[in-house]
Amino acid sequence: MSVRKFAIADASFERSPGQDGDVSAGNVIDQRNGAPITIGFGRYGANQSIEETLAVDDVMVVLEGRLSVTSNASTVTAGPGEIVYMPKGERVAIRSHEQGAVTAYVTYPHWQEAQA
Amino acid sequence: MSVRKFAIADASFERSPGQDGDVSAGNVIDQRNGAPITIGFGRYGANQSIEETLAVDDVMVVLEGRLSVTSNASTVTAGPGEIVYMPKGERVAIRSHEQGAVTAYVTYPHWQEAQA
Repeated sequence: MSVRKFAIADASFERSPGQDGDVSAGNVIDQRNGAPITIGFGRYGANQSIEETLAVDDVMVVLEGRLSVTSNASTVTAGPGEIVYMPKGERVAIRSHEQGAVTAYVTYPHWQEAQA
Repeated sequence: MSVRKFAIADASFERSPGQDGDVSAGNVIDQRNGAPITIGFGRYGANQSIEETLAVDDVMVVLEGRLSVTSNASTVTAGPGEIVYMPKGERVAIRSHEQGAVTAYVTYPHWQEAQA
């Protein structure tokens, strides 16, 4: 594989599995590319909330909007240009605010394989 | 380890090893944290250029400015909100433009260990 560049328009978004909120993810690099990591874009509607136990290490870079992540009764809130690191095994609640949010994410290993 | 949030002010920048350009990197998560990945922020002055052979898989999310990455005689240019994926083993030239650039990066495995 060679160097590749991705914009959000390159992602095919699907609703996050097991969730009924307006939260979707679009991988641009994953297990199909032979890479060790998954890369993608995430999109959160306004005032959405999802809960999950992380099957992989997950890094979110907030590109637009704000996200609050609660785990172990502690909450962090990140805006544009900030990074949230969610270690494998953590139980997290991710909440968007009134303006929604867009993220870039990287997971190790591949989240789709870990959830399957 | 629990969920953590990082802003660019949390990074301690050091000049990229082996480079003499105005390019610096500041890890916020790495081998010292027991994570499988390194996370950090990168900062490029105006019109800088570095070349390296990637010892790890490296994902850059451009937060500010623009970066052009050339490998195998092909060049991609990324601006704010765009992602550049550089696979391990690739020989790349990374060039900033007149406004410099700020990135968030994730590497697998840890770039500092791979370069050591």
